[in-house]
Amino acid sequence: MRQRLLEATVDSLVEVGWSGTSTTVVSHRAGVSRGAQLHHFPSKQALVIAAVEHLTELRRDEMAQSVANLPQEGRTRAVLEALAAQFVSPVFFAALELWVAARTDEDLREAVAPLERRIGRETHAYAVELLGIDDSRGRNRQLVQATLDLARGLGLAASLTDDTARRASILDTWADTLDTELER
Amino acid sequence: MRQRLLEATVDSLVEVGWSGTSTTVVSHRAGVSRGAQLHHFPSKQALVIAAVEHLTELRRDEMAQSVANLPQEGRTRAVLEALAAQFVSPVFFAALELWVAARTDEDLREAVAPLERRIGRETHAYAVELLGIDDSRGRNRQLVQATLDLARGLGLAASLTDDTARRASILDTWADTLDTELER
Repeated sequence: MRQRLLEATVDSLVEVGWSGTSTTVVSHRAGVSRGAQLHHFPSKQALVIAAVEHLTELRRDEMAQSVANLPQEGRTRAVLEALAAQFVSPVFFAALELWVAARTDEDLREAVAPLERRIGRETHAYAVELLGIDDSRGRNRQLVQATLDLARGLGLAASLTDDTARRASILDTWADTLDTELER
Repeated sequence: MRQRLLEATVDSLVEVGWSGTSTTVVSHRAGVSRGAQLHHFPSKQALVIAAVEHLTELRRDEMAQSVANLPQEGRTRAVLEALAAQFVSPVFFAALELWVAARTDEDLREAVAPLERRIGRETHAYAVELLGIDDSRGRNRQLVQATLDLARGLGLAASLTDDTARRASILDTWADTLDTELER
């Protein structure tokens, strides 16, 4: 039941956004009574915090699936594809709703900011591992950070219009740039 | 009075976000009667569309001011600073509120998407001009697009926490990379 409520929260954020999401909407969507919901999550705040953590796990699972069979030929481009895919997924759009709502809601920001920092660190470590580089060499660390910020920017652009072709062209160029600039 | 209403709309989006912004809040904030507001903007939709256009003009003015005196030494880094500054400004945070609200509101998306495309084209042309490059050479076009998507991603990160030092370090590295990779 807990799992159903968390998934309903994520689905609601993706479909109707932060302002359309309420505990009533979520309990109805999950097919769970208000009483049972309040037992698991006594407030919207509690529900949302748990859903953010759930988002994190979903993200990690999605990425693990997408990189199970990376090719050796064109590996950098394939890694970029897997990373960028995280930022155009429903999970990213749900996280985006939380993120933006948290900008103007101090309580929510206190809950979301540490989680986003943790996700950021984990995603960075994961990207370093996939690229097969030493993060401490040259400017590798900054280049990986730039890669993840680029992917975030591409995700935000994709939230409004489908720009798949434009994104692919940028990632092609970015992969070539990384292959030149990263110290192996 | 029109100007006051548009600025109050932007301020409201920055301070209390999309969900906290209403025509009532805006008329109160602008010190304008409801009747006078309805005369200028008969609906929230009309007000918001005008405010988005106003955002565009504000963005352009801000950028023009910030690049009035670009140095020849370290020009690429200075251009990146000016571009990135657009994406950590109150104007960007107001636009971010509209952008994210538009993802789940079809009417709003139809009004915001063409404007965002226009802003994107204009910002791209402006970046090309500032960098002093020929957009049609080599991979220059993709590198400029990547630069603007990177700046957008950095702006989204900055909306939740102050990460000025991290951003500066990434832009240092990216300026060096562009100086290597751009075809002059």
